[in-house]
Amino acid sequence: MSYFGEHFWGEKNHGFEVLYHSMKQGPISTKELAEFIRERATIEETYSKAMAKLSKLASNGTPVGTFAPLWEVFRVSSDKLALCHLELTRKLQDLIKDVLRYSEEQLKMHKKLKEEAGGTLDAVQVLAGVSQLLPKSREHYLSRCMDQERLRRESTSQKDMDKAETKTKKAAESLRRSVEKYNSARADFEQKMLDSALHFQTLEETHLRHMKALLGAYAHSVEDTHVQIGQVHEEFKQNIENISVEMLLRKFAESKGTGREKPGPLDFEAYSAAALQEAMKRLRGAKAFRLPGLSRREREPPAAV
Amino acid sequence: MSYFGEHFWGEKNHGFEVLYHSMKQGPISTKELAEFIRERATIEETYSKAMAKLSKLASNGTPVGTFAPLWEVFRVSSDKLALCHLELTRKLQDLIKDVLRYSEEQLKMHKKLKEEAGGTLDAVQVLAGVSQLLPKSREHYLSRCMDQERLRRESTSQKDMDKAETKTKKAAESLRRSVEKYNSARADFEQKMLDSALHFQTLEETHLRHMKALLGAYAHSVEDTHVQIGQVHEEFKQNIENISVEMLLRKFAESKGTGREKPGPLDFEAYSAAALQEAMKRLRGAKAFRLPGLSRREREPPAAV
Repeated sequence: MSYFGEHFWGEKNHGFEVLYHSMKQGPISTKELAEFIRERATIEETYSKAMAKLSKLASNGTPVGTFAPLWEVFRVSSDKLALCHLELTRKLQDLIKDVLRYSEEQLKMHKKLKEEAGGTLDAVQVLAGVSQLLPKSREHYLSRCMDQERLRRESTSQKDMDKAETKTKKAAESLRRSVEKYNSARADFEQKMLDSALHFQTLEETHLRHMKALLGAYAHSVEDTHVQIGQVHEEFKQNIENISVEMLLRKFAESKGTGREKPGPLDFEAYSAAALQEAMKRLRGAKAFRLPGLSRREREPPAAV
Repeated sequence: MSYFGEHFWGEKNHGFEVLYHSMKQGPISTKELAEFIRERATIEETYSKAMAKLSKLASNGTPVGTFAPLWEVFRVSSDKLALCHLELTRKLQDLIKDVLRYSEEQLKMHKKLKEEAGGTLDAVQVLAGVSQLLPKSREHYLSRCMDQERLRRESTSQKDMDKAETKTKKAAESLRRSVEKYNSARADFEQKMLDSALHFQTLEETHLRHMKALLGAYAHSVEDTHVQIGQVHEEFKQNIENISVEMLLRKFAESKGTGREKPGPLDFEAYSAAALQEAMKRLRGAKAFRLPGLSRREREPPAAV
């Protein structure tokens, strides 16, 4: 639909000015979009850094105690979240480059259209000029008609009547020229204005398509990251679920355990017999021997000593 | 499974110390969890504020031009994202309160267990004491045995032999008492240590269940927000898609349009005839009349004049 070709006429012919002014907003909106994305990229970067800091907090969680292994889950999750947001930052920074590239392209298109629109601006001004002249010309003709009629009613001399008639005819001729000029300027304006309106519409259409493609890329990046973040959350939840209380207790017992051997009771007879044996051995010198059937445990006090 | 009842024995009986030390990490990990969640809440609050600022940037987007209505989509989306993250902040702040409530509860449980563990600590120390005496007692008995044997080999007098034998018997008696003391201390230690180990395990189990429930609530809040954010992204994408280029062009044309009436061409005959009529009318005074079949357009110059 040629919306611009239909809606920018009307009294005073301001349509061209409105369209021209609107066109100049195009590069502004492109610049604003770049600013918006830049701001978003900064927000994501800040968030990413904060998450990396949070990961450090998790790393510093007490390494002792049964809860310790769960800090690792927090650390990994925070690190991954930091990465997701950093990746979004980078994608948005790339997108800003695309926006700026388009911005340059757009300025070139605008320069070209501004040159073409010069002719239309002239036509608008010419039409405005002849439109101002026309009522003056009409008023002049009207005055001559009234003068002539007044003379006729006053029954003035034929000579004066002839003079008045000549004046009226001249005024009519002048009015005819004004009307012709107006019609010519109007026709020129209509053609040029229509051409320009269609050009403006094409330009805006191209602009909007480009901008929408950029918005699509923006939405896509944000959504991609959102999916990744969802995976990190899911992983976090799964990891927490997978590390059961029983597993944490076992892990702690196995890694921090001091041994499974309880101190055994001592049998006095065996203990004292072993001491006696050792006394005999010492008397015989350094030469060691062992009585068969006497284990280490029976000869010596247990581990605690 | 009684992991703690099995893994904290071994040489030197350090198991109790390890378990006691580990228990004291429980409140530390609770405090650290509260700190972690507080940090996360702060991060979300900062992000929320940044999003609100971003929404303002979108509100300030140029209101002129065809792209203008799309800024509203950005503004709404940013506002909603700000709200999602603010809501997460609030949920996390509530969660911190739960963590701190549990922390107080935990300290009470610890106080109770510390009191109960006092008896076990005593048993550990008694066992350590008798374990140190035992080798001394043994060495003393062993020396007496050697003395007696040496006298026997040297064929000492019966009297000296009798004296030595008495000394050996006394040393054996002393050793028997040491062994009995050790056995009694050992049995007491084993029972108390086992009780305490089971208590420690129950405490750690309760702690871990509580902590895991808090982590579950944390994950749930984060996930809830994630789902909401996903809806905001989906909405953003849909809104951008729904606002077609054609719709933007039409909206712009309709709201900023200057009119659909083109300036019409003038017919000189009708235009001059109308001027003549007006001249006659003026001469007749202010009384207005209209010639039938003569439209306004034919009588006057068009809108532009």
